[in-house]
Amino acid sequence: MNEALLTYIHELRDLEGILELLGWEDETYAPKGARVARGPQVATLEAVIHRKLTNPQLATLLASATPDNELETVMLQRLQRQVDHATKVPEDLVKAIAEARSAALIAWQKAKADKDFDLFKPHLERLLPLVRDKGAALGGGQMSPYDALLDIYEPQMTTETLRPVLDDLRRGLVEIVDALRVAPQPPADCLEQRFGDGAQWQLTLRLLKDLGFDFSHGRQDRSAHPFTASVNERDVRVTTRIEEHNLMGAVSSTIHECGHALYEQGFDPAHYRTYLAAAPSMGIHESQSRLWENQVGLSRGFWRHYWPEMTTLFPGQLREVEVDTFWRAINRVQPSLIRVDADEVTYNLHILLRFELESAMIAGDLQVADLPAAWNDAMLTLLGVTPGNDAEGCLQDIHWASGAFGYFPTYTIGNLYAAQLFDAYRRAFPDVDTQLEAGRFEPLLKWLRHHIHRRGHTAAASDIVKETVGAPLSVTPLLDYLRAKYRAVYDVAL
Amino acid sequence: MNEALLTYIHELRDLEGILELLGWEDETYAPKGARVARGPQVATLEAVIHRKLTNPQLATLLASATPDNELETVMLQRLQRQVDHATKVPEDLVKAIAEARSAALIAWQKAKADKDFDLFKPHLERLLPLVRDKGAALGGGQMSPYDALLDIYEPQMTTETLRPVLDDLRRGLVEIVDALRVAPQPPADCLEQRFGDGAQWQLTLRLLKDLGFDFSHGRQDRSAHPFTASVNERDVRVTTRIEEHNLMGAVSSTIHECGHALYEQGFDPAHYRTYLAAAPSMGIHESQSRLWENQVGLSRGFWRHYWPEMTTLFPGQLREVEVDTFWRAINRVQPSLIRVDADEVTYNLHILLRFELESAMIAGDLQVADLPAAWNDAMLTLLGVTPGNDAEGCLQDIHWASGAFGYFPTYTIGNLYAAQLFDAYRRAFPDVDTQLEAGRFEPLLKWLRHHIHRRGHTAAASDIVKETVGAPLSVTPLLDYLRAKYRAVYDVAL
Repeated sequence: MNEALLTYIHELRDLEGILELLGWEDETYAPKGARVARGPQVATLEAVIHRKLTNPQLATLLASATPDNELETVMLQRLQRQVDHATKVPEDLVKAIAEARSAALIAWQKAKADKDFDLFKPHLERLLPLVRDKGAALGGGQMSPYDALLDIYEPQMTTETLRPVLDDLRRGLVEIVDALRVAPQPPADCLEQRFGDGAQWQLTLRLLKDLGFDFSHGRQDRSAHPFTASVNERDVRVTTRIEEHNLMGAVSSTIHECGHALYEQGFDPAHYRTYLAAAPSMGIHESQSRLWENQVGLSRGFWRHYWPEMTTLFPGQLREVEVDTFWRAINRVQPSLIRVDADEVTYNLHILLRFELESAMIAGDLQVADLPAAWNDAMLTLLGVTPGNDAEGCLQDIHWASGAFGYFPTYTIGNLYAAQLFDAYRRAFPDVDTQLEAGRFEPLLKWLRHHIHRRGHTAAASDIVKETVGAPLSVTPLLDYLRAKYRAVYDVAL
Repeated sequence: MNEALLTYIHELRDLEGILELLGWEDETYAPKGARVARGPQVATLEAVIHRKLTNPQLATLLASATPDNELETVMLQRLQRQVDHATKVPEDLVKAIAEARSAALIAWQKAKADKDFDLFKPHLERLLPLVRDKGAALGGGQMSPYDALLDIYEPQMTTETLRPVLDDLRRGLVEIVDALRVAPQPPADCLEQRFGDGAQWQLTLRLLKDLGFDFSHGRQDRSAHPFTASVNERDVRVTTRIEEHNLMGAVSSTIHECGHALYEQGFDPAHYRTYLAAAPSMGIHESQSRLWENQVGLSRGFWRHYWPEMTTLFPGQLREVEVDTFWRAINRVQPSLIRVDADEVTYNLHILLRFELESAMIAGDLQVADLPAAWNDAMLTLLGVTPGNDAEGCLQDIHWASGAFGYFPTYTIGNLYAAQLFDAYRRAFPDVDTQLEAGRFEPLLKWLRHHIHRRGHTAAASDIVKETVGAPLSVTPLLDYLRAKYRAVYDVAL
């Protein structure tokens, strides 16, 4: 491949990494009053990247590019994808979306605080058709607008593939939820205590280290909302949030972000500074965070391993508690209103609801004015609960206000992939439970590194998973895993 | 002025601010193993800025620019200066310097560690003529190479102006040093204790706050070498270094960086995101750090004010100590080998030595091979001490290894300006000593804001100082200040 083209790709990746650092900084160490001036700096850097992607010089380079091997071919396809995203949406529309989004975000915050959907409604009504137009522009007649939006986050995934899978998932999940609803809840008193900030912080660092997070190429800090930032392949950062009344908030978020970070720290050095050193989809990225968070971090073996540590760190709170009591407590299932607080079983029902509503909105089958009622109806049907107001209903998430339609399904795709991968791992290593109970996490990480991480974006997410587990996107492993686990947690037939 | 041109300037400033953040990050929170990947990111961003400055589109915009007022005229001159720096040095030479500098820095580190000048010699011999060529290219026959290099850091200052001033300064300083050399030294036992890290940190934060540092638009962190970073006008960061055996190291460095930061936080909002929101020279910038560090932070009134706080923070170390004993201890004068550890009186002799040697090297009057001997001779003449090896001699500073010839004089210019400004302030506010003893720092800050900070780079440093103090660069205020102070510290005739 042309050296100039490779340099071009390197520079794009460098600048994107800097953008990531700016985002990380904004949530961690930036002084409060700096935000107003940081905005223009971020916008300028984004403009520089956008200009690089839309520069005719790049088009020329791409047109005359002669890849020397299959890897380079893929490398150029990935770059072309970036160029397409930067060029296919007309500049006027990009600008209109940016403006509408900006106003919608402010209105959404106020609407959520005031529990008043009407404050948000006109903004969503302005933003929605623009996002639909963006989908149409990206789809170019080849994909429906919604599929084109979905494709931004989950390349090569379509509604046609996804809907039947999600329908199956809904049926299976509702069955489990209904069975658990009538079972006696495990007691959760052991969690309803104060857990010191210092000990929690120490625990999260210990977990990161044990799971394989590389602190010489990363760090953990605190932020209001936990996230992972890849400044570059050798600098991957996670954040967590510690609240004294919410031990599992910090633990789960650290393990979750650790899963993302292990992925980002595990790309093939041969792909560094190119679009191959990247996850091929948000769904597969989420599979890594969720696998560690749920399949590993909510398992009985995991907590048996850490129990001596836990009772040392929190003697006053946990010395009298049985590990199994703790494990049952952290695995309670309870239909609830807020997605981000939902348990492993009900979580995907929150996503299914959003997928149906957002695809209907983009298709024009659901009007913004009818969103709150549709939301509340679906909550009642799927989860048997009704929001007391829209703040704990259709206003709870930032995604739509930020124009990110098509993003939600990737959470569930991630959960499905996680279960498929963990199932395949169990087939390869039938002693996985023993591994977890012994705190031996490196065989799992090594396996994920080999099958998922090192491959980066050399293939589509669906292909990588399929090659690893031997099957396409499927609900069976997740439902089987949930049934087996919750039989044990609740001691009921499932 | 053309809107496009203003946007162009804004974007340049935004990107430069991001570069500043990357530098700050590298010294504070970047994971150890990230450095190898950060280098290319920084280089890419530098390349983006360089390309923006050398872009023919900018030349066209500048050629057709029609400033609407005098301020815009100056604004365009400042931009033109950036363009000149980016375009006047041929690309081959820029590249050759970058390569030679990179190798020289590595060699310098090793040479310093091994106390072996010969390891550095060939690298400096390679770098020196390249830097000389850069000076020649920038000077373009109008300025000598050394003056052109000096002009990078201290615009409009020339050797012709500087040398007679520095000659006067040398005579005056040597006289003071000689007088103090035979006087009995104030005891310094009170400093030779361990001062807890936590209390020191608390003290430095208190000092920053009291002196007027705006924490909603800045922060303090720790780094190996203290520095100030301006991410943008609303985000100015300082760092300090705390060592338990060196209380005044942290105190002085915090006050020093605070002085720089107050300047950066004090630009006129009307100049934000342009080259006017900047110090007009390194010397005037240094005047702000040194004025606060020395004239304020080493004054008797200052420590009388803080003594109750000090004895509370460090009861075990200081409760039995008289404030005047402490004040004398921190103001000991002692000729020594290392510039960065030098006291207020001998410091400038270290600079004068470097100025003579570096201007001779650039002029071709001093060969690299002869540098160690010339250094040691000058140290003996000026300070009466002789380095035991080159690590504590001509290898001690990073400047020459990094190609920064012409930078050293700005330290002394800063000290001269600081004394001139403080002298003018004392004329305007004869009760300045009472102000300091009362901890009333805001009149001084307000005065500096008005005369120096708000003006930014709307005029040359020498003009701004001259308008403020009513005289050109002069040694009298510094020598008068030193004589008066050290008469009091040492109780001798000066």
